[in-house]
Amino acid sequence: MSAFDDLLAFQRQTEALSSVAERLGWDQETVMPRGAAEQRAEEMSAMEEVLHERRTDPRIGEWLEAAEPQTEGDRRAVELIARDFARTSRVPARLASELARLTSLAQGIWAEARANEAPEDFLPTLDQVLMLKREEAAALADGGDLYDALLDDYEPGMTGARIASLFDAMRPRLVALRDDVLGAERQPQQLSGHFPQETQLRLSRACATAFGYDWTRGRIDLAVHPFSSGRWQDSRITTRVVETDPFNCIYSTIHEVGHSSYELGIDEDYAFTPLGRGVSMGVHESQSRIYENQLGRGRAFTGWLFGRMSEAFDGLNVTDADAFYATVNRVTPGYIRTEADEVQYNLHVMLRFDLERDLISGRLDTQDLAEAWNARFLRDFGVAVDRPSNGILQDVHWSVGLFGYFPTYALGNVYAGCLNGALRDQVPDLDAALAEGDATPATEWLRENVQRHGGLMPPAQVIEQAAGASVSPEPLLDYLEAKFGQIYGL
Amino acid sequence: MSAFDDLLAFQRQTEALSSVAERLGWDQETVMPRGAAEQRAEEMSAMEEVLHERRTDPRIGEWLEAAEPQTEGDRRAVELIARDFARTSRVPARLASELARLTSLAQGIWAEARANEAPEDFLPTLDQVLMLKREEAAALADGGDLYDALLDDYEPGMTGARIASLFDAMRPRLVALRDDVLGAERQPQQLSGHFPQETQLRLSRACATAFGYDWTRGRIDLAVHPFSSGRWQDSRITTRVVETDPFNCIYSTIHEVGHSSYELGIDEDYAFTPLGRGVSMGVHESQSRIYENQLGRGRAFTGWLFGRMSEAFDGLNVTDADAFYATVNRVTPGYIRTEADEVQYNLHVMLRFDLERDLISGRLDTQDLAEAWNARFLRDFGVAVDRPSNGILQDVHWSVGLFGYFPTYALGNVYAGCLNGALRDQVPDLDAALAEGDATPATEWLRENVQRHGGLMPPAQVIEQAAGASVSPEPLLDYLEAKFGQIYGL
Repeated sequence: MSAFDDLLAFQRQTEALSSVAERLGWDQETVMPRGAAEQRAEEMSAMEEVLHERRTDPRIGEWLEAAEPQTEGDRRAVELIARDFARTSRVPARLASELARLTSLAQGIWAEARANEAPEDFLPTLDQVLMLKREEAAALADGGDLYDALLDDYEPGMTGARIASLFDAMRPRLVALRDDVLGAERQPQQLSGHFPQETQLRLSRACATAFGYDWTRGRIDLAVHPFSSGRWQDSRITTRVVETDPFNCIYSTIHEVGHSSYELGIDEDYAFTPLGRGVSMGVHESQSRIYENQLGRGRAFTGWLFGRMSEAFDGLNVTDADAFYATVNRVTPGYIRTEADEVQYNLHVMLRFDLERDLISGRLDTQDLAEAWNARFLRDFGVAVDRPSNGILQDVHWSVGLFGYFPTYALGNVYAGCLNGALRDQVPDLDAALAEGDATPATEWLRENVQRHGGLMPPAQVIEQAAGASVSPEPLLDYLEAKFGQIYGL
Repeated sequence: MSAFDDLLAFQRQTEALSSVAERLGWDQETVMPRGAAEQRAEEMSAMEEVLHERRTDPRIGEWLEAAEPQTEGDRRAVELIARDFARTSRVPARLASELARLTSLAQGIWAEARANEAPEDFLPTLDQVLMLKREEAAALADGGDLYDALLDDYEPGMTGARIASLFDAMRPRLVALRDDVLGAERQPQQLSGHFPQETQLRLSRACATAFGYDWTRGRIDLAVHPFSSGRWQDSRITTRVVETDPFNCIYSTIHEVGHSSYELGIDEDYAFTPLGRGVSMGVHESQSRIYENQLGRGRAFTGWLFGRMSEAFDGLNVTDADAFYATVNRVTPGYIRTEADEVQYNLHVMLRFDLERDLISGRLDTQDLAEAWNARFLRDFGVAVDRPSNGILQDVHWSVGLFGYFPTYALGNVYAGCLNGALRDQVPDLDAALAEGDATPATEWLRENVQRHGGLMPPAQVIEQAAGASVSPEPLLDYLEAKFGQIYGL
């Protein structure tokens, strides 16, 4: 065995254990009995400590020094292990374990506070999480910017300053489009009625199948906040049901199918190596977003969906496919990010990005967070937040310590915009398939050009190679203006 | 921190990790996508290797030497850790890891072979499992008896020779009772009809509730082979449904509720210590069996169940409660151990005990197993096995390496017989509660006298202290002769 072989064999077990920890997280959010929270926190903490010990094992340093990778893939694997080793070695085991225990508990506290509209039950815990995250950021940043150090976990190589300038460039065109759309004379109908849970779940399964989701390597369950979980042979999705709004369930499902398809689409030779995962959250989100929006909310697929839904719910109050397409893409003022339309979604992200940068830098305290959120929301969206579950309690992210994660959602939209142009050019008859409820030609193109590569190339390179152009927000903004201009007759 | 504190803190994490591995096993049997088998095998193997490393960590030896436990509980915890340390240190890490990987795969191979009635697809794998188990037994036995070394994992202190002589003492009375019952003039009616899955599951949930199962710390799912899984705050049960036979689902559920109640009933101070588990498989089985048989199949509880089932299924072909009681306890020739009545159940166990002792000792080869099984079954039960799923493919145990486990089922029945006498003496109005569908007074007595102690005392001591007499098969045999004598008018 060479040093390289030893390194990869060790990494293989670490990847397997990390996949176990992820499966445990899925269990907690979907099937775990409610009274098991403390036990699970203890279990997660023990797993985290084992993983931390492995990731900081001094033998990795020795193997890295002696390893002689021969192929491009092997060199990249060594690079990713070295990067992870350097980062993890900076975080003390005690801190990693405390963070695991606290965030496992905090998630339950957040869910209960959200159900009870009681931010005061959650904010002290959030403050503890924030404290530990700042400590972690300081350890990682090594004198550099705290927020950048956290962001780098989700979008390697990206900085807060670059995100800020990207967002500054996008904001005016998005705000202008939003104002035009909300002021337009032509307004889409709203879907109304009662849509039973079982029928919604059946339709969601049909949509997942339409996008080629591999049921032998996945499953769908209910969760408070939809997510996808797992890799290689086992990537599961979750969704949620609101019986007055079937689009919530259907588009959450398609979104998560995008995430899982990425993981399931990675070259199987990369399984149990650092190449066997989506390369960044931004690229991950590009997959979920292009499935959900450019494909799932396009005219062709909604035409098929209109037929399926009319049949399943025994008629709808929206009675033709063009009107249904407008209904699916209806832009209205709203509080919830995950329910936001394509025009306003990125504005929601920008709000969180600015607030979390301030929380991490110390410019904002958790006790002032609600006020800051509500003031900013009023300014950006023109409405006052009516209750905490529509405001600071709506997202799970901060409770589980995901600071620096939010901007990757908007970055994913930008990437999806870039990919969509190339996809449409190279699969010209895609709309004909989508109109038949078959999105697999899109999945195949994305698998070939993005998904199969896993971690082989850095994020921007994956997108640029697939799109055939450098990353820019222009394709996304052009697409949005064209789509919503047509729907709203601007 | 004293050596004792260090030892217990280390053990706490090991217990948490072992609980994670158990949860992973549950996942595999209930919700895991079918295509994830290889990945799961890799994950289980990685977990097993971590656990093996921890269990053989040389620091344990040092801590054990220096530990000065002060209380009875602390002394017992140290004793159990020392016992586990000595045993685990004997098994090489390579062997433990191979066993984990192989048995994880073998389970899927067994399930498929069983579905296809194709023992030839399973036997080569069983042979590999057996080879590794013999290797493990040899490492554990250190020159002693191979089978005893494996048995000791499930029933500490017990030997194959003592089991054999116990079984020899029981067999004549069981065979005589079986012959009398099968030859009796009065024969109970058989339940017939179609019993929809959803209704069976609803009734099973009601039965679990009747026995005081804590739904905030548990849940019920479907699995091929019913089992209970987990401890402390999270002990889940599984059941199965045969739509022509509702008793299969209902009594599997009550049986597993017995196992889970034991784990959930252990003193919460013992959580994450070696005292925080059922002390042996025999004692475990005493709980599941007394719930299922002495309580669940008694006249009082079946009276309540008769009412619930008549209502749920809109009438039954058995129309009064006494006849229903006889139907529930109907003795018929049958192939399947888990469906066997109380009279014949132990005879099924004896068959497996003798065969697996021969497999481990090398007196029997896997290629001759089907022939040996079928010949023995014909001799013991008077009928020829009609297909492999009714013969050697019916149990999951051997596929997952559980050699030495089967006799603990019969031992559990013996223990249950001992406990039942004391329970009836000390809770004289129990039948009145059972007749109302309330078995919680029994659960409370068992919790107080057996369950809460967890691993505090050796198996026989737990039973003897609760029963107020030494362990003997007499109470069980007396109970069976009285119960079935009355039902069959002997």
